[in-house]
Amino acid sequence: MIFEGSEKKFELIISSFNLRELGEEFYSELVSKANASILQTLSNDQCDAYLLSESSLFVWEDRLLMITCGQTTLKNSLLFLLNKLEKEKVESIIFQRKNEHFSEMQESTFYQDVESLKEEIEGSSLRFGTDHEHHNLIFSTNKKLTNTAEDRTYEVLSYDISKEASDFLTMSHLTSSKIRDFLKLDEVLEGFEISDFVFEPFGYSLNAIRESEYCTIHITPQSTHSYVSFETNMDCDISKITHYLQDILNPESIDVVCFNLNDNLDLPSGYVQRSHYNGSLNCGYLVDFFHLYRENKEILKPLKV
Amino acid sequence: MIFEGSEKKFELIISSFNLRELGEEFYSELVSKANASILQTLSNDQCDAYLLSESSLFVWEDRLLMITCGQTTLKNSLLFLLNKLEKEKVESIIFQRKNEHFSEMQESTFYQDVESLKEEIEGSSLRFGTDHEHHNLIFSTNKKLTNTAEDRTYEVLSYDISKEASDFLTMSHLTSSKIRDFLKLDEVLEGFEISDFVFEPFGYSLNAIRESEYCTIHITPQSTHSYVSFETNMDCDISKITHYLQDILNPESIDVVCFNLNDNLDLPSGYVQRSHYNGSLNCGYLVDFFHLYRENKEILKPLKV
Repeated sequence: MIFEGSEKKFELIISSFNLRELGEEFYSELVSKANASILQTLSNDQCDAYLLSESSLFVWEDRLLMITCGQTTLKNSLLFLLNKLEKEKVESIIFQRKNEHFSEMQESTFYQDVESLKEEIEGSSLRFGTDHEHHNLIFSTNKKLTNTAEDRTYEVLSYDISKEASDFLTMSHLTSSKIRDFLKLDEVLEGFEISDFVFEPFGYSLNAIRESEYCTIHITPQSTHSYVSFETNMDCDISKITHYLQDILNPESIDVVCFNLNDNLDLPSGYVQRSHYNGSLNCGYLVDFFHLYRENKEILKPLKV
Repeated sequence: MIFEGSEKKFELIISSFNLRELGEEFYSELVSKANASILQTLSNDQCDAYLLSESSLFVWEDRLLMITCGQTTLKNSLLFLLNKLEKEKVESIIFQRKNEHFSEMQESTFYQDVESLKEEIEGSSLRFGTDHEHHNLIFSTNKKLTNTAEDRTYEVLSYDISKEASDFLTMSHLTSSKIRDFLKLDEVLEGFEISDFVFEPFGYSLNAIRESEYCTIHITPQSTHSYVSFETNMDCDISKITHYLQDILNPESIDVVCFNLNDNLDLPSGYVQRSHYNGSLNCGYLVDFFHLYRENKEILKPLKV
């Protein structure tokens, strides 16, 4: 069974309003607008982290981040949220879609989503990468955010992971504890509280929070179209994160998407950087998009499908 | 306006039957099944070449090749043809789809097409490349063809052509003569008869035949998702053809698909070979799939969309 792992995502920032006060019942309705549901909830002083049937929702007082995959209709959740808020308090919205690999399964395209959003909010869109290759489409509102430089987000997206990783992650009777060990999460997520879920027959999702920091991991392990996403706002070295994931997953290719990158990206050994796009969203975020792939001089065999 | 340049294609080989005798009226109905129509007809002793509203149809006595792009439903034409023929005379069928970039616009997927075909004919499918990257999906019947080694076909597919090439090919009031000059066709198609068409507002299609040889070129020139396909069974050097096209179009990436390649592929200067797949179809064709891209160390700017 084909599953579209590639995510859609939106982030909303607000002032003079506490988003957490809207409560779990409201957020349950919000995620249902995207045809998703809440599986688990994890909270600390600063953040409520909802693990969803399709990815994740994080709610802070002044900010909300929702990520969904599969055939979800994320823009409907954003429209539902906007309808609840006083628009003049909204400081910024970004709405992002990665290129899908089975876009025939989607209810709408990025461009159709943006048309709906523009009936409610002004903004403009950028495409990082070309239509014929891996790319990200990002809509953002025009209002300039202040003090965003420390507001870092990293996404590391691994495509076509090694046979060994795919074989392990598609084993039957896998427990979340075994997957955490496989992903060496003790090292990476030291001090984080974790909420995770193993899907039947395949798939794994994780939310982790530590004060205002979050990390989320989503795995589509099927060898024909495997995909693993890792996203965080941790104060970390993006090269180290990329190397750590490559070491475990050894994927055929990797997209790295950075909001306000302040380092260079050192490539994992054996990988080639095919492209690097860099540009600013109207709201002020600086976005870097890298596509890397594992060099392979071998002649490969086609797959029976 | 977005247009899916990537083609679907089928080739049918038959014995003890003359496909040309089915006549233009029949073929007009056949192409209508794919939601295409015949624009021009060109014939010589061995072949009828139909230029279509969406690509091309070539008919020889013992063989038929149909290529369509856009939102056409090619498999319906193949099913219509099969219904007209005595199945025991059919020696071979291949049905091929390149990965589409706007697959949400397609009426069916390759896998759905193959399900329909399998109700009529036995066969199996291979995927050359991964779902997350450029790839070709090819269904073929199981019966072994004899004497296919000389039966060569080359496809050179250019993605995201240079700004200069896109600017020229999207000029208003372009004539086919200007496009032929731009493509330097006098050299490449020496001795071929040509039938070509300039579409409004953009686009160009060409069929060319010389005895039993054919060549077909289809251009989607819009800079946001430009695509040029070149396909031929000429006795030629695939490296030379690839270099000639690169020289004029300088695309961001190139797929080369070869049936019964007997040379090596020498890369154009400045290009990197990302992948090479090689495998045999059940009918006996040896298929090579190469994905090349232009090396670019620059940091690129996102596109406003």
